[in-house]
Amino acid sequence: MNYSNESLKKHYGWQGKIEIVSRVPLNTREDLSLAYTPGVASPCLEIQKDVSKSYLLTRRSNLIAIVTDGTAVLGLGDIGPEAAMPVMEGKAVLFKQFGGVDAVPLCIRSKDINEIVNTVRLLAGSFGGINLEDISAPRCFEIERRLKECCDIPIFHDDQHGTAIVVLAAVMNALRLTKKKPASVSVVINGAGSAGIATARLLLDYGIQDIVLCDRSGALYKGRAGMDSEKQSIAEITNRTQKKGSLAEVMANTDIFIGLSVGGCVTRDMVKSMNVKPIVFPLANPTPEIMPDEARLGGAAVIGTGRSDFPNQINNALAFPGVFRGALDARAGKITEPMKIAAAQALASYVKDGQLSADYIIPDTLDKAVSEAVAKAVAKAAP
Amino acid sequence: MNYSNESLKKHYGWQGKIEIVSRVPLNTREDLSLAYTPGVASPCLEIQKDVSKSYLLTRRSNLIAIVTDGTAVLGLGDIGPEAAMPVMEGKAVLFKQFGGVDAVPLCIRSKDINEIVNTVRLLAGSFGGINLEDISAPRCFEIERRLKECCDIPIFHDDQHGTAIVVLAAVMNALRLTKKKPASVSVVINGAGSAGIATARLLLDYGIQDIVLCDRSGALYKGRAGMDSEKQSIAEITNRTQKKGSLAEVMANTDIFIGLSVGGCVTRDMVKSMNVKPIVFPLANPTPEIMPDEARLGGAAVIGTGRSDFPNQINNALAFPGVFRGALDARAGKITEPMKIAAAQALASYVKDGQLSADYIIPDTLDKAVSEAVAKAVAKAAP
Repeated sequence: MNYSNESLKKHYGWQGKIEIVSRVPLNTREDLSLAYTPGVASPCLEIQKDVSKSYLLTRRSNLIAIVTDGTAVLGLGDIGPEAAMPVMEGKAVLFKQFGGVDAVPLCIRSKDINEIVNTVRLLAGSFGGINLEDISAPRCFEIERRLKECCDIPIFHDDQHGTAIVVLAAVMNALRLTKKKPASVSVVINGAGSAGIATARLLLDYGIQDIVLCDRSGALYKGRAGMDSEKQSIAEITNRTQKKGSLAEVMANTDIFIGLSVGGCVTRDMVKSMNVKPIVFPLANPTPEIMPDEARLGGAAVIGTGRSDFPNQINNALAFPGVFRGALDARAGKITEPMKIAAAQALASYVKDGQLSADYIIPDTLDKAVSEAVAKAVAKAAP
Repeated sequence: MNYSNESLKKHYGWQGKIEIVSRVPLNTREDLSLAYTPGVASPCLEIQKDVSKSYLLTRRSNLIAIVTDGTAVLGLGDIGPEAAMPVMEGKAVLFKQFGGVDAVPLCIRSKDINEIVNTVRLLAGSFGGINLEDISAPRCFEIERRLKECCDIPIFHDDQHGTAIVVLAAVMNALRLTKKKPASVSVVINGAGSAGIATARLLLDYGIQDIVLCDRSGALYKGRAGMDSEKQSIAEITNRTQKKGSLAEVMANTDIFIGLSVGGCVTRDMVKSMNVKPIVFPLANPTPEIMPDEARLGGAAVIGTGRSDFPNQINNALAFPGVFRGALDARAGKITEPMKIAAAQALASYVKDGQLSADYIIPDTLDKAVSEAVAKAVAKAAP
């Protein structure tokens, strides 16, 4: 199917993918007096006395905002806030469908970090959490960091942490299948944007020690030229043997390749140069870093992509609905590293021993029970 | 019924009065590919090429934000953003029920005019209109004025204009009933806050010439001490004979009393001092400026209050859903004076000649067809 034409046609027909509905009856004068004036004064006063009651007396306990500035939308780049809205609405319906979470898409008409931070900060009392989305690196790091400091609700940049969680889950199960140990495997991540850096951090937290990130100029190492402050920071804690060189050079003799970059940059020979039973996750969309059949010819033992038309779709949608569901259920003030690792573990262990195979290391995106399992684990791991 | 206790109990049970639902199917892989990636790229690119397409390809054409800072909520005053949320959610469900409008409540954690204006300005691309709500005077005037200048979507402070529209409709029908003419009647408005000032302006626009506003210090007149800039402005264009004195003094020999102030400040004798067939609208809630039976004993020919338990409830809910419905349908960039007057006229003429009586000058709040009539008139009057 030509998704492009068909989707455009559908969008014209849908006139928006979300809708706001009432949870209360409004048919009689009494209904109005209870849901609105004069009755509504009493829940207002109750919240005035104790602001935490807003979680019980309004939708806040189930309501998040999806916030973007439209600067890094899909693979399309900086297309602007209004043009980002179809993606944000799509995300909102996934939140509802898979996590039961009510999500309001908010597209901000500014690329200024201060303006974005202020806007979200001032709205934090209306929501139970904030999902940052499709904000370009390195701005996304500072925006998230500052919002975490000034907000009392979870702030979660999904392009970073949603990706990192699902990749970690896939890595867990690929290691389970190939009988390799986290502490002894070597990983190359191509792409040092928000997803690449966050994935590296989460893999480190999980206990993988040998990680090298690459960008267009090759391996990131301490003191390399042409790195912004985020790349400098991650270079401090990765690439412990200070490897230098191109992606092809650093991929040799490694166990895991994770592509969060651009289509077609990995060859069959590069996969061949990896250790035995290489794990290859070319996640670029729609064109992977290497097509699965090529990776297989290079000897890949486990392959996962970002696409739905190949096995092992490593897709954020497996994580974010359950992560927020769990954080909201636990009324967590933030989403911590242990919560993210618990989410990955829940995803990985959703695939039982008898089911695990090279073509099934990660659950199906359409399986609603996945988010429930993730939510339960995340809520349990909340501080 | 004790609405206060019952409403609180209901609110605990409801866990929020609004909910965000999906308008699209999400059951198959194909559904996901159309509503989300990869298909969603095509509506994004379409909007990038032409931002106005956001009205066709996202929910924007039916979506508004209800924005407050929680500084003037009901009669409760400055109770804070979180505590204002039950009212905003109530408003959102009225928008949906009576206007079919999707409304997102946003409570801003700031009382600073610049911060509020910036927050709304930066979010304007996500919505088709902004309903400002329960923001204290005189800040509300500057906030609305500045937002109108910098936003390309309708900005409507309902406490001002919603009230003004419904009061004007009630005045139209009260004049029709008492056979008085707009150009020759005299009006006293008690309360020079957002509602009082906006009502005075709209009555002037409609053609009523003799209007005196009062605040706690009595009549507003040019050069009076203790007036902020908004009161000074309205004093410039009202009270042409420069009346001075208390509310009781200026009410004598007038035709219409409009109370947008506090309960109990008008006596039977004050009504008696008015012209023949006085029109009395004591709109303070929950306690009117004068109770209807007292006003009647004072000789009032027509009485309207803000309450649902007396005839002639002069209630914003008659206006705002239809006003936004009409503005959205016409894709109006702003809500103009002619649109407001058209809304009032639609409300007034909804009451047919054979139905019009002292106890029925304004339609029933629960009648959904009212909003449709208002919407049609507003859309038609849009520039």
